[in-house]
Amino acid sequence: MRPSSSGSDSLFGPLFGDPEVDAALTGRAWLQAMLDVEQALAGAQVKAGLVPQPAAEAIAQACTVERFDVADLAERSLAAGNPVVPLVRDLGARLHADHARYVHLGATSQDVLDTATSLVSARAVDRILAALTGAAGAAARLADEHRHTLMVGRTLLQQATPITFGLKCAGWLVALDEAVAGLRRFRHGRLAVQYGGAAGTLATLGGQGPAVLRLFADELGLAEPILPWHTDRTRIGELAASLGTATGVLAKIALDLVLLAQSEVAEVAEPGGGGPSSAMPHKRNPVRAVLVGAGCRRVPGLVATLLGAMAQEHERAAGAWHAEWETLTELLRLVGGAAASTRELLGGLRVDTGRMRANLDASGGSLMAGGVAARLAGHLGRNEAHDLVARLVHDARERGVPVRALLLEDATVRAHLSTVDIEAALDPTQHLGAADEFIRRALAAHEEQR
Amino acid sequence: MRPSSSGSDSLFGPLFGDPEVDAALTGRAWLQAMLDVEQALAGAQVKAGLVPQPAAEAIAQACTVERFDVADLAERSLAAGNPVVPLVRDLGARLHADHARYVHLGATSQDVLDTATSLVSARAVDRILAALTGAAGAAARLADEHRHTLMVGRTLLQQATPITFGLKCAGWLVALDEAVAGLRRFRHGRLAVQYGGAAGTLATLGGQGPAVLRLFADELGLAEPILPWHTDRTRIGELAASLGTATGVLAKIALDLVLLAQSEVAEVAEPGGGGPSSAMPHKRNPVRAVLVGAGCRRVPGLVATLLGAMAQEHERAAGAWHAEWETLTELLRLVGGAAASTRELLGGLRVDTGRMRANLDASGGSLMAGGVAARLAGHLGRNEAHDLVARLVHDARERGVPVRALLLEDATVRAHLSTVDIEAALDPTQHLGAADEFIRRALAAHEEQR
Amino acid sequence: MRPSSSGSDSLFGPLFGDPEVDAALTGRAWLQAMLDVEQALAGAQVKAGLVPQPAAEAIAQACTVERFDVADLAERSLAAGNPVVPLVRDLGARLHADHARYVHLGATSQDVLDTATSLVSARAVDRILAALTGAAGAAARLADEHRHTLMVGRTLLQQATPITFGLKCAGWLVALDEAVAGLRRFRHGRLAVQYGGAAGTLATLGGQGPAVLRLFADELGLAEPILPWHTDRTRIGELAASLGTATGVLAKIALDLVLLAQSEVAEVAEPGGGGPSSAMPHKRNPVRAVLVGAGCRRVPGLVATLLGAMAQEHERAAGAWHAEWETLTELLRLVGGAAASTRELLGGLRVDTGRMRANLDASGGSLMAGGVAARLAGHLGRNEAHDLVARLVHDARERGVPVRALLLEDATVRAHLSTVDIEAALDPTQHLGAADEFIRRALAAHEEQR
Amino acid sequence: MRPSSSGSDSLFGPLFGDPEVDAALTGRAWLQAMLDVEQALAGAQVKAGLVPQPAAEAIAQACTVERFDVADLAERSLAAGNPVVPLVRDLGARLHADHARYVHLGATSQDVLDTATSLVSARAVDRILAALTGAAGAAARLADEHRHTLMVGRTLLQQATPITFGLKCAGWLVALDEAVAGLRRFRHGRLAVQYGGAAGTLATLGGQGPAVLRLFADELGLAEPILPWHTDRTRIGELAASLGTATGVLAKIALDLVLLAQSEVAEVAEPGGGGPSSAMPHKRNPVRAVLVGAGCRRVPGLVATLLGAMAQEHERAAGAWHAEWETLTELLRLVGGAAASTRELLGGLRVDTGRMRANLDASGGSLMAGGVAARLAGHLGRNEAHDLVARLVHDARERGVPVRALLLEDATVRAHLSTVDIEAALDPTQHLGAADEFIRRALAAHEEQR
Repeated sequence: MRPSSSGSDSLFGPLFGDPEVDAALTGRAWLQAMLDVEQALAGAQVKAGLVPQPAAEAIAQACTVERFDVADLAERSLAAGNPVVPLVRDLGARLHADHARYVHLGATSQDVLDTATSLVSARAVDRILAALTGAAGAAARLADEHRHTLMVGRTLLQQATPITFGLKCAGWLVALDEAVAGLRRFRHGRLAVQYGGAAGTLATLGGQGPAVLRLFADELGLAEPILPWHTDRTRIGELAASLGTATGVLAKIALDLVLLAQSEVAEVAEPGGGGPSSAMPHKRNPVRAVLVGAGCRRVPGLVATLLGAMAQEHERAAGAWHAEWETLTELLRLVGGAAASTRELLGGLRVDTGRMRANLDASGGSLMAGGVAARLAGHLGRNEAHDLVARLVHDARERGVPVRALLLEDATVRAHLSTVDIEAALDPTQHLGAADEFIRRALAAHEEQR
Repeated sequence: MRPSSSGSDSLFGPLFGDPEVDAALTGRAWLQAMLDVEQALAGAQVKAGLVPQPAAEAIAQACTVERFDVADLAERSLAAGNPVVPLVRDLGARLHADHARYVHLGATSQDVLDTATSLVSARAVDRILAALTGAAGAAARLADEHRHTLMVGRTLLQQATPITFGLKCAGWLVALDEAVAGLRRFRHGRLAVQYGGAAGTLATLGGQGPAVLRLFADELGLAEPILPWHTDRTRIGELAASLGTATGVLAKIALDLVLLAQSEVAEVAEPGGGGPSSAMPHKRNPVRAVLVGAGCRRVPGLVATLLGAMAQEHERAAGAWHAEWETLTELLRLVGGAAASTRELLGGLRVDTGRMRANLDASGGSLMAGGVAARLAGHLGRNEAHDLVARLVHDARERGVPVRALLLEDATVRAHLSTVDIEAALDPTQHLGAADEFIRRALAAHEEQR
Repeated sequence: MRPSSSGSDSLFGPLFGDPEVDAALTGRAWLQAMLDVEQALAGAQVKAGLVPQPAAEAIAQACTVERFDVADLAERSLAAGNPVVPLVRDLGARLHADHARYVHLGATSQDVLDTATSLVSARAVDRILAALTGAAGAAARLADEHRHTLMVGRTLLQQATPITFGLKCAGWLVALDEAVAGLRRFRHGRLAVQYGGAAGTLATLGGQGPAVLRLFADELGLAEPILPWHTDRTRIGELAASLGTATGVLAKIALDLVLLAQSEVAEVAEPGGGGPSSAMPHKRNPVRAVLVGAGCRRVPGLVATLLGAMAQEHERAAGAWHAEWETLTELLRLVGGAAASTRELLGGLRVDTGRMRANLDASGGSLMAGGVAARLAGHLGRNEAHDLVARLVHDARERGVPVRALLLEDATVRAHLSTVDIEAALDPTQHLGAADEFIRRALAAHEEQR
Repeated sequence: MRPSSSGSDSLFGPLFGDPEVDAALTGRAWLQAMLDVEQALAGAQVKAGLVPQPAAEAIAQACTVERFDVADLAERSLAAGNPVVPLVRDLGARLHADHARYVHLGATSQDVLDTATSLVSARAVDRILAALTGAAGAAARLADEHRHTLMVGRTLLQQATPITFGLKCAGWLVALDEAVAGLRRFRHGRLAVQYGGAAGTLATLGGQGPAVLRLFADELGLAEPILPWHTDRTRIGELAASLGTATGVLAKIALDLVLLAQSEVAEVAEPGGGGPSSAMPHKRNPVRAVLVGAGCRRVPGLVATLLGAMAQEHERAAGAWHAEWETLTELLRLVGGAAASTRELLGGLRVDTGRMRANLDASGGSLMAGGVAARLAGHLGRNEAHDLVARLVHDARERGVPVRALLLEDATVRAHLSTVDIEAALDPTQHLGAADEFIRRALAAHEEQR
């Protein structure tokens, strides 16, 4: 047996995958899905009166993955360009001739491989959805728990104005819920069987094709397409797109976590505290979030490949179809790994609320200056107020004093604002606006979607 | 004024864009959208009791694109990193101080730019949807008209079995309808206003933020988000994905047209017959389909950029947000151009039905051999039947004779099939399976979706 | 043990990979490379006087891949985020304490993993280069053999003017030679060791770092970098780029082969005649070229991922580095598979010279019309000549007669050209221009590069 | 005139481009390049004796961009699918018939457009190289100036061990120099003329094609290719790749700057201090670095598009070629903008050396703990030493005391290390290893490359 793909004894696989999702994506899982398809096809054809019950039973019995050698079949795929051709040969060879003639009836290789793609995707997506909803649940708990945990909001990586950690978690929650909604809609509405025969007419079934198509879809619990979609790859494009969008959400959360875990910020740590370094005993690296980020970075290129591969020739593509198989498998694997790790990260996140408050207070009031400017705007005009306060902030920074002192001293400021006004403007707890209400909305929407 | 982007006096623009869609995407159109946002915000705030009616009226009057110089504003954007900062300055400067203080109330630059993105996208997507539904209508007409036009189906660019041109068009139709459905769902359900203020809390509005948010959404006819989505970019990801999927559909159709127009195939020609060549007077190039294909090739990379840019830091991104603006504009432009050209191509397609039939018959019956094998399978077993017929096809090709002759001579074949059986098996009109029914389904689904 | 990556028992791997290249990319091969690195480091440090000879010998003995369990190590990598941490632990544990302290001296995980990346890449690239030069050799033989084989040149998939098949092969040859040149330059000039310690200063070696760096590079036959390149990923970018460019060349050849093998063109067939179809006995699919095309389609997305991952933070990246490992492995695998298959395809290509000539003649002279226009241009002016001939070509097509007849009849044409002139203008062998000289140049350049 | 591309009056262009590079990429600049090509071709043909001197002079005079209307030409390009066809018509129409017949002699549209691509690229790349070398010069000055400026090295965004800011700048310098070297090699060795005529044989020149090809290349100062490269796009792939690699370098520098400018780190600020915020007067956003990062993010997708477009059919591509024009223009524009901004950023960077030192000291010695572990390793063994020190670091963090105190108290530590040993181990100036030597090497290599 030849050494096959680079992943054959992968050294890096566990870093980016999730055991449960991975298990739905192995060569063996793909092969089982193809066997499930052949079995379901025969089952549907029994109902359509095209195949005798005993033949379908014999086929079902033969369709057990344990009876096949994945590596051997993979090797023999090269001649025809896909594994269905040798698989159908082998299936036939294992059956009595009376039954063998009913295998793969009316089907072409792509019917089997595409329907198997739907099955494999369904199985993997179900596990990805479980991980994503788990992550959303954890985000919801954090949002609820940290409703009143003050921290600084950061824009362009600069401290901006106060928010709560709960609001940040609510943002993650809404994004996760949106990703779940998109993926669920695809999972239940669009994953379809494929059955068109050699060129999409189901010619060998005479007029019975559409009836068998419906029965076949029922058999597998997948959608029935209007037409065979051999070269209409909107389904693949939509799956890639849903996974790509979900990945963007996971990447955002991982990026926030890595940034919050920076030594100089230190507001969160990973469950367990982070990973060790081989050379530096003091370090606790945000390893899991780093790996999520790494996995997510690899997704847009895969999505682009699948979208680009939608341009498929005539009734069956000369390459673009073949480019889907490993790409989609890899895509599902990476999203699965990122989703599962995110669930774990959010589920056990260590939050340092003291540090959050300390970082918020570190600017000596400068970041509350926008509130002062807003109060002055009514008196001075928007631009003048903004410029005056910006100047005082700048002076405070230069002189190393809190801006509060300069505000209290400035004649123009004092002409319009009292000490109480200024203190109120500088108090972060007075400047959270709708943070709490937004958290409530996010949690309510989450409850509704569940 | 500096020479700005490469597109400032574009030499290639008209090849890939559509005038109507392009008009929704110019710098001026973007600026108008931003002004629409500022106006709508003031309007909503009148209803919320935060802004006096006269101020809103003055703002509305100032929000006319003709009063602004796009290039000058663009130049001054560099200091703050986006055009909203100088725009708000200018707006304020043109208003009486009593009104100026009500401009941009509670908003941050990203609120304006993101809401403008939704407006610009809505306007462009509406035109893209018009082009796509126009193309779908043309495909429906072709499917109906060519229900019985025989042609050869091709798989891996090899002649396979007979289909009808109507079925091929029905395939394009279903794919276009799927693209339309996805884009419509996004257009009407997900394009939302953005309004969160400096860090997503609408702090300067106290508790009134959510009420203004709702009024603001109503004002513009856009969706109201659960939370500000400053760094939850699922909407952008979904838009990119819908456009990317639609592109895949357009690319497939263009590819089919270019292949069908090949000199050696010559089954279709472009409206007008195709484009001239500077050096070769005999050529009629499938120029429009070639350009559609070219535009579509550039889309997956843009989608990948937007998906990759979903990883946005904390409460406002340090670059990933900025990467969206031109990328999304370009994406909308390319999809718009491809959709409009496809509508034109399908609307005026020249179909050579005689050539279709001639190409179908050119193999001397070899491509009908699958039908003979299917009939023999019941007698000989699937594999043996396949191998026997494949051998005869091979011999016919080697000897340059029609396979029909060899089939009629072969003892094993004749042991099971009569001359009539063989002739029937070789008659393409007898082997169209569910082609007609599939066309009917596609047309019915199209009617329903309209 | 958990089921790891999707590739663990790959069903699709053999379709897209090459056994020899794949063998250089397995988890085991990666692990061996890491062990080679640890061994070489100790070896270099013996020469620098930092490590006693017996310790280095003991380390060398321990650095045998057979002693390690890839899957177990992979599993334990998750805690630290890379496999070097557990590997160094294990190595130490297998050595006497007197020797163990000399393992991994001064190194950080990234030093080992990056240098292993260079080793793995070198080994894979050498095999890829062998396949590419093999393919170039086959292209050279075809160019030479088919110097005078007339065929039609095709532009925008329309028949254009005559060329020779030798010229087409010379075009493939030059492109392959360019790909080889780029990859060779990278292989021998840029694949470097990595050695910088925790933050790139080799701090634990005091001032001896650079000396060890040089010895270490010598030990492995890799380049010595000016600085540690922990977050300067130009080398990775250049490798990705060279592989991406080579892929473009392979994709072009595969595309040409698939198009030439179309039923309606039929000028070439794959070695062995092509692959069988499960449903259609008459088909001989260009399977191998289709698979090459499929593999190549997946490469640009991977290159984009690696280029995007060049943005690495400070002294070690938080994810972008981790994104390289599997991506680069996959990239090398796909290019390796495509290169080896191309060598095989060109080495055994079946060329139907009769069909080439027949396709050239099929237009009845229309495609030679450019030559007539050129001869007329001197008399009529360029545009008028072009338009006149274009009109005659159009008429000939409409009337179904050879354009030759119309040219001989046309008064304006005959005013300037004799029958002999016209016949000469229409003779393809008279219109090959520099085809032969270009073939000679390509073969000479190929000889020189070898 | 129709509104053309989205960029026609770009609102965002100046944010991502550079005026000088942009000027080389306008439609007008492209058109001028095409006219330069026609003029040079006629010039070369005078030397070859194919064109009379007066005709070439008349052509040269007509080839002035001012005489053409870019928008009108762009509009008329649609019929033939590229702007060369109407351009050649117009040129001919403006010349006396005696001269007009010598325009575009032997050439096809792609000859002109591809050679213009080389010219436009040469002009843009020269400006990009100037910006990159300017940035490298600024990095060299910073490296030299900050040779001894202590700061903390950061890995996975965690504080790691001490480095100097000079070393960080030396890392940027080496990467910039590598990008320059790659781009220069391409600029001077690979940018070539294109001249092959209708199908790459230069048929209309009889045997004189290669001689004209050489003269044509001389005329423009571009390389002479071995063969016409109409569908051998290695040159385009290599250009895209060089630009993509340079972009990765610029993205890395911008990312470092944004991270160093974070409020919590604050070690650098942009020239001028950064950009203002519309809502927050205290903020000084790292606007320029953010925009560089944004521009760079968009590059890998464009490179992928160009690499994917290398698969071009037969003798001229049906779309992949057309996809290059705007993509390459955009790529050059974005790299130009990023390079110029980086030159500006590094040239005027504000460095807060006090803050660098303060951040280094902030961990209370924890990050020097690796040095202590290294000293203990000789006594305790590598793993034990690492674990002991990691435990003390953890305890120090928990108890909020400097690790120094715990190290001085710990019995095991004290059994092997004296107070002086421990203090030395904790002194960052003692742990810079080869930092200074590495800076020297980077500067020396930079001098050599200039």
